[in-house]
Amino acid sequence: MKLGVCAQVFYPLGRGPAAFAQAVAQAAELGFEAIELPCDARSPFIDLDDALAGGWTRIAELVRGAGLTISALSNHQEGQLLLGGSDTDAIFAGTAEAKTRYAHDRLVRTAELARRLEVDVVCGFTGCEDYARWFPWPIEDGYERMVPRFREVMRPLLDELAARGVRFAHECHPRQFAYNLETAQLALAAVDDHPALAFNFDPANLLLAGMDPVVFVAELGARIAHAHGKDGELVAHHAGRSGLLAHGAPHRRDRGFRFRVPGWGDLSWRRLISELQLAGFAGVIAVEHEDPTMSPREGLVQAVRHLAPLILREPAPGTRWW
Amino acid sequence: MKLGVCAQVFYPLGRGPAAFAQAVAQAAELGFEAIELPCDARSPFIDLDDALAGGWTRIAELVRGAGLTISALSNHQEGQLLLGGSDTDAIFAGTAEAKTRYAHDRLVRTAELARRLEVDVVCGFTGCEDYARWFPWPIEDGYERMVPRFREVMRPLLDELAARGVRFAHECHPRQFAYNLETAQLALAAVDDHPALAFNFDPANLLLAGMDPVVFVAELGARIAHAHGKDGELVAHHAGRSGLLAHGAPHRRDRGFRFRVPGWGDLSWRRLISELQLAGFAGVIAVEHEDPTMSPREGLVQAVRHLAPLILREPAPGTRWW
Amino acid sequence: MKLGVCAQVFYPLGRGPAAFAQAVAQAAELGFEAIELPCDARSPFIDLDDALAGGWTRIAELVRGAGLTISALSNHQEGQLLLGGSDTDAIFAGTAEAKTRYAHDRLVRTAELARRLEVDVVCGFTGCEDYARWFPWPIEDGYERMVPRFREVMRPLLDELAARGVRFAHECHPRQFAYNLETAQLALAAVDDHPALAFNFDPANLLLAGMDPVVFVAELGARIAHAHGKDGELVAHHAGRSGLLAHGAPHRRDRGFRFRVPGWGDLSWRRLISELQLAGFAGVIAVEHEDPTMSPREGLVQAVRHLAPLILREPAPGTRWW
Amino acid sequence: MKLGVCAQVFYPLGRGPAAFAQAVAQAAELGFEAIELPCDARSPFIDLDDALAGGWTRIAELVRGAGLTISALSNHQEGQLLLGGSDTDAIFAGTAEAKTRYAHDRLVRTAELARRLEVDVVCGFTGCEDYARWFPWPIEDGYERMVPRFREVMRPLLDELAARGVRFAHECHPRQFAYNLETAQLALAAVDDHPALAFNFDPANLLLAGMDPVVFVAELGARIAHAHGKDGELVAHHAGRSGLLAHGAPHRRDRGFRFRVPGWGDLSWRRLISELQLAGFAGVIAVEHEDPTMSPREGLVQAVRHLAPLILREPAPGTRWW
Amino acid sequence: MKLGVCAQVFYPLGRGPAAFAQAVAQAAELGFEAIELPCDARSPFIDLDDALAGGWTRIAELVRGAGLTISALSNHQEGQLLLGGSDTDAIFAGTAEAKTRYAHDRLVRTAELARRLEVDVVCGFTGCEDYARWFPWPIEDGYERMVPRFREVMRPLLDELAARGVRFAHECHPRQFAYNLETAQLALAAVDDHPALAFNFDPANLLLAGMDPVVFVAELGARIAHAHGKDGELVAHHAGRSGLLAHGAPHRRDRGFRFRVPGWGDLSWRRLISELQLAGFAGVIAVEHEDPTMSPREGLVQAVRHLAPLILREPAPGTRWW
Amino acid sequence: MKLGVCAQVFYPLGRGPAAFAQAVAQAAELGFEAIELPCDARSPFIDLDDALAGGWTRIAELVRGAGLTISALSNHQEGQLLLGGSDTDAIFAGTAEAKTRYAHDRLVRTAELARRLEVDVVCGFTGCEDYARWFPWPIEDGYERMVPRFREVMRPLLDELAARGVRFAHECHPRQFAYNLETAQLALAAVDDHPALAFNFDPANLLLAGMDPVVFVAELGARIAHAHGKDGELVAHHAGRSGLLAHGAPHRRDRGFRFRVPGWGDLSWRRLISELQLAGFAGVIAVEHEDPTMSPREGLVQAVRHLAPLILREPAPGTRWW
Repeated sequence: MKLGVCAQVFYPLGRGPAAFAQAVAQAAELGFEAIELPCDARSPFIDLDDALAGGWTRIAELVRGAGLTISALSNHQEGQLLLGGSDTDAIFAGTAEAKTRYAHDRLVRTAELARRLEVDVVCGFTGCEDYARWFPWPIEDGYERMVPRFREVMRPLLDELAARGVRFAHECHPRQFAYNLETAQLALAAVDDHPALAFNFDPANLLLAGMDPVVFVAELGARIAHAHGKDGELVAHHAGRSGLLAHGAPHRRDRGFRFRVPGWGDLSWRRLISELQLAGFAGVIAVEHEDPTMSPREGLVQAVRHLAPLILREPAPGTRWW
Repeated sequence: MKLGVCAQVFYPLGRGPAAFAQAVAQAAELGFEAIELPCDARSPFIDLDDALAGGWTRIAELVRGAGLTISALSNHQEGQLLLGGSDTDAIFAGTAEAKTRYAHDRLVRTAELARRLEVDVVCGFTGCEDYARWFPWPIEDGYERMVPRFREVMRPLLDELAARGVRFAHECHPRQFAYNLETAQLALAAVDDHPALAFNFDPANLLLAGMDPVVFVAELGARIAHAHGKDGELVAHHAGRSGLLAHGAPHRRDRGFRFRVPGWGDLSWRRLISELQLAGFAGVIAVEHEDPTMSPREGLVQAVRHLAPLILREPAPGTRWW
Repeated sequence: MKLGVCAQVFYPLGRGPAAFAQAVAQAAELGFEAIELPCDARSPFIDLDDALAGGWTRIAELVRGAGLTISALSNHQEGQLLLGGSDTDAIFAGTAEAKTRYAHDRLVRTAELARRLEVDVVCGFTGCEDYARWFPWPIEDGYERMVPRFREVMRPLLDELAARGVRFAHECHPRQFAYNLETAQLALAAVDDHPALAFNFDPANLLLAGMDPVVFVAELGARIAHAHGKDGELVAHHAGRSGLLAHGAPHRRDRGFRFRVPGWGDLSWRRLISELQLAGFAGVIAVEHEDPTMSPREGLVQAVRHLAPLILREPAPGTRWW
Repeated sequence: MKLGVCAQVFYPLGRGPAAFAQAVAQAAELGFEAIELPCDARSPFIDLDDALAGGWTRIAELVRGAGLTISALSNHQEGQLLLGGSDTDAIFAGTAEAKTRYAHDRLVRTAELARRLEVDVVCGFTGCEDYARWFPWPIEDGYERMVPRFREVMRPLLDELAARGVRFAHECHPRQFAYNLETAQLALAAVDDHPALAFNFDPANLLLAGMDPVVFVAELGARIAHAHGKDGELVAHHAGRSGLLAHGAPHRRDRGFRFRVPGWGDLSWRRLISELQLAGFAGVIAVEHEDPTMSPREGLVQAVRHLAPLILREPAPGTRWW
Repeated sequence: MKLGVCAQVFYPLGRGPAAFAQAVAQAAELGFEAIELPCDARSPFIDLDDALAGGWTRIAELVRGAGLTISALSNHQEGQLLLGGSDTDAIFAGTAEAKTRYAHDRLVRTAELARRLEVDVVCGFTGCEDYARWFPWPIEDGYERMVPRFREVMRPLLDELAARGVRFAHECHPRQFAYNLETAQLALAAVDDHPALAFNFDPANLLLAGMDPVVFVAELGARIAHAHGKDGELVAHHAGRSGLLAHGAPHRRDRGFRFRVPGWGDLSWRRLISELQLAGFAGVIAVEHEDPTMSPREGLVQAVRHLAPLILREPAPGTRWW
Repeated sequence: MKLGVCAQVFYPLGRGPAAFAQAVAQAAELGFEAIELPCDARSPFIDLDDALAGGWTRIAELVRGAGLTISALSNHQEGQLLLGGSDTDAIFAGTAEAKTRYAHDRLVRTAELARRLEVDVVCGFTGCEDYARWFPWPIEDGYERMVPRFREVMRPLLDELAARGVRFAHECHPRQFAYNLETAQLALAAVDDHPALAFNFDPANLLLAGMDPVVFVAELGARIAHAHGKDGELVAHHAGRSGLLAHGAPHRRDRGFRFRVPGWGDLSWRRLISELQLAGFAGVIAVEHEDPTMSPREGLVQAVRHLAPLILREPAPGTRWW
């Protein structure tokens, strides 16, 4: 395993190559070994058109020059458009069909950029026709009804990615078709276990679904292509009031649940890393800092302080030597 | 407090007055003192048109004759249409506007029937423009954006109910605008604390939101007009896999969460009843049996066995006598 | 074991023999087998002077006539005066010395009445020179400093009781010298394990000291002469705020700790009764109802409902038969 | 489901038909509907030779006359001899081979008696070559090494039972080859899922193995032919000292673990019965009283008081009616 | 936030300027950035008379010279005399009135010294007329009765401090009028929310009151002027015996509760620091080492090792950047 | 206290002096201060015959040269033969008597080597006549029956060790006569508290017995001569299935319990070290790495990272300085 970072935390540095260079330099200086790079239209660091037109060499050099690797490209914003769901107009305005087409195109191009950068994972979202259907009322089979559309949209996309040697690492998350272990398994079944469908394991999102993220690794470990170093906290003194399903802005002080940097939430990273290790995972855990209590820089410092000493770099032995 | 029952559990008895009479008789025989009667179009026992046209006297006599009272009329099905949300076509097909109009009309008539029956509570749902917005992404202020519509739809309805001496007891539940304590408080604020907005306290639904139902009573006890005797179980040996937000049919054996009859779930009814008692609640706790492990009859027997001995009939003394 | 009741819960019935007769009749009707009778000056049922002057025969007949036994006489009010402590003027005004003398005299007379009634236990308090010394600051040996006075006051009293065949069952409780297991052991040591010093085991008081009442039975079971059926609740949704050491009136709604009737608090009566059984305790558990959520009558109904089915009447077998 | 009782608790009544009649009468009077009858040589009620020689009709009449059924015959004592293990000389002295032969013969005859009594389950033990091998040291594959012997001894026995229409319900328990879920699955595999190998589900024994008995039902529910109503208590105030693996006499007061009657231990019978219900179990839960804190009679009274109200007699509905 | 230390841990170094210089040097060397200086008569480092007579410049230079700041002056010893309570003769012998006068005078002079040193906080105690009154018996309104005296003594003192630009940071603690959140709020109300009344937040003391220290921050965060880095341990293997309210010497080995250095007790410093951060606290957390298991030096090393990496130096961002 | 390491983790380095030198060098480089050296016939580093014939000087020099000390010699393999138990033929084939003789001889010679090396502890096992007897069935007094043999075998051995100034530090562990606190106390009683019987405190083994290792220290701290830094994990997501008593290979992925390096299991090393400190333990905690998830080297790195900062080197002060 290696320790990486998601580039969003550096967005306050500004737009363009200079800001990007600064981001990469700070990542290296803070002790990260890899970086996950968002490629959606909102990204201040990567312009997909420009990159595919040749800019990719500069990206590669810049990252390599800082001693980092790119653990994954990501495109959550536009992935959200694939299967729709509400509130996506700020990402791309248009009909549902147009949104899907746009998202498909952007993700294929993200994958193409990944291929050129010799990165084999694109992390992202898929959206969800109707996420409210996780509760089986007024209709009982709401989730099953969404399977055909998931298959219809995702199979061609996965084929395109496979053709480029890239896997799509879906991140289970609220408002996605797959938001917990069982819906992840449903998604795999929907595309006949397509080899290009993998997962970006974000344990905080799974905590928010009320399940045990370690069980996700135990059952789907072989499909985990990338991981996020993000923690979650059921805020003990507020949870009785606002609950796990706290609505409203993430930095609202009295939420019953908030995302945290690793070590400051409820997750046992030792348990998580142990199970990843037993599952043979040797990839990158990229810190995603969405912790409302810490500045961007201080949150990263804390995350590295907690995670770096726990990263295991040698595989489990598999036999006893004693 | 008194112990009541929700009439849905008797639907297998069939349609019409004879089935209804049988339902009421069984309720009395099982030890219930009150009944909550659904008045939506799907109800096999109450035809709203017929009842308002005079049938209500027969209903009143039948219930009274069995030694019961009507704790509330209810209309969850059609209430779901008020603010929309998906998957409601089986209830009433039409535009969003038509659905709202239909629901408004049906609820007003339900209230009118309540008035004639000398019942002062109508329990129900309100639906939700977009329940998926409980998670603040892709937009952060999704819940706040729905406040104006809630106000616009609910205020006139509440006025109509108030004019009939009836309170609308909203049941916090997934896919409703108010699904936990904080959204219940948001709903109250949205209608300027309209005196006709109350709550049908269903602790199992609140458990499913990841909060502590006792805290709901501690903060909003004065607005609780009716309660449901329904329990919920975070199924310990499955919860690690499917989580609190388990999708799929309620009787699926391996769900991480299931509704239970009181006493068979995780709720402490002594804690709940203690806080209801301190809040001065002297109304009805109506058993709602949606427990997939027990037959309709056996579930009610179990519920009565657990709850009846805990029902407190005298108010808290308020001073010390010792 | 048998199930009894503390007479204080019947004080609202009024003063004098008629009220007392009513109290005893209600106790019997509710299913109790024994009664603990307070004999302090505040008692509306027992006038110590009158009783010793011959009234005791009437008391004995009245209780026997209702099919009850007297499990213990009690005198907590005046016992509080023995070692002083503040706020006792309402019980008896005077110098510390006068209070001790008065208390000694009253307790000896209570014991004399017990002897005549063929009751071998007097439950009560001892007070405490300075209960605030449970915390070892500003001085570290505060508790040890109080040992001589405890010995000086208690030894003669215990001798008097022993001469009458009566044990003094001290009830560990805040503001008493012995308030938990360790101070109970200190008290025993202070009087050289005087055979007349026993304990009235009130598990709720021990819960309030933050210890496990079952351990008290495991270590001091042989010294338990009487028990109280009283429960305590660390009020989950308030405890974070007001803590175990909640000040203020017992019926204040938002206390972090409150006394409850058995079954409505945190105690496992099965664990307690199991350990009492293994300790060979075959005495009376007298329900002391100080539950601010229930009327006097309803609290007793609840207590009997919970405890009566758990009372074990046959000793543990001591060997295996299977 | 029905509620039964294991006959050992009546052994203190003495030997022979009169004692047996008394046992059956008491079982019925206490509210049991079925009885599990031990048939080993130590049984005071059943003489296997006599019963097979015709005495079985008297047994059948006696049990039927009391309104009971026989839920199972059992033979734990002699079953222990099948695969040996130490300390069995008091059951039958001889070589390991002779013990196995004797046990085989006795179990086949127990099954033959079951056939005549129209009972289709024989509960029992199998013993274990070397139970100490649960810990993988000094050799790692100790358990696997015992599989061939298990297969060799059990297959012919299971064939004999199958020929008589009887299943062998092995009770997972310390010192048996199968003592938890995984070894139960190993046992099934060892005999190629022989249809005559079932389990007598005793949740207290599984608790003592440190696992969750409900998971046993979830995975092997279809193989559960009979169940024991026995509870277990990790004795909170002693467990830190003596641990789960407490040695020494079962009635030793300070053990860290002890068997209890249902309701007085750590098991949630509601969770257990819910899962049995979902597994379609409709058999008998026979109370096995080995609780060192209660007399034989009082233990049964407590067990019935706790379990009888929880016994579900109608199958889970499987669909939603509401 | 910054990390500081309470100077008491250096008392073994001896009296006078040289010892003081050594203390300050060691504090700096161990990694502390600030120091809390006691100014009571027992302090070996600060002589109040001498300091006010000009010695303060030397103090200021010495501390500054070591690269430290003074986070607060403190005066717990003499503060204890303000409202009395027992066992204070070793601090100052005299009548209650004389003690109060002396304490008032000493605290005003402590504040005056603070002013000269440009320190705006004086930490301390207030004592308590009768701390035993936390339990509402024999009188119910014991706490309320002490409000007037608290007001009478504290208002003039707070005015004096305010006149010097200094806040009095009361430390909730046993034997003080304010010992938990609710009594802290009572204290504030008693002085009409006097702006000079603040709190020295010592989470271990609040743990000892059985409450959640994080809730104190959530409700009174804006009044926290200073904090103590002190932890508390409910000693799991002794707590069943001696309870939370363990009496006797702090270094007694078998206490049920003991103070610990941060990281070695039950507190989650991440939860505490998160809430302090959200409350906008940017002051000093001064380690107070009263841990009976570690030498003065080793305890400080452990405290720094645990706390230093958790100190957040940048404010919470308040918006989302991702 | 100091931090040491058990040499088995270096066995993959190969046999002989060069490998041993490498092992010692790596131990020093990783930050250990001491090493526990196995002396059984399987040890690749120590040949007992050769060492006693003079090789011990080379061993002493080598260890000293690396800046380490020898915390203990150990001989678990051959100790297992002392009292027998099954599955020991791979250690030494022969009759039970021959095994005991061989083991006695080997342990005496191990002690002799210890004497020459100025090491006063030999860690090891004793084996157990019949470990399956921890469960009291088929016979109740199985453990008591093994006391005479334990005494007969151990007394002469302990005398031999005592004559060499060496204590035998038995390691409680499955398949040993003493496997938890109570059997350790039984062992001490069996040899009349022989001064040469001590314990090698391995908290992970005690966890596996279902007890609290801290209680072992609280009661037998004075007999702890050496400690192991080994942790244990009740694997939360598998424990429901395979339980605490999981059989099969230690590196099987789905075991319910596994040994871990310190910090990665369930033990609180702060609680353990606090109690060791209060017990006056000033010896070595030697990391024993049997963690199936980490390579030999990486496991040691993790262990040092967790334990080294917690090692207390100064005794508890015993008084208060503040």
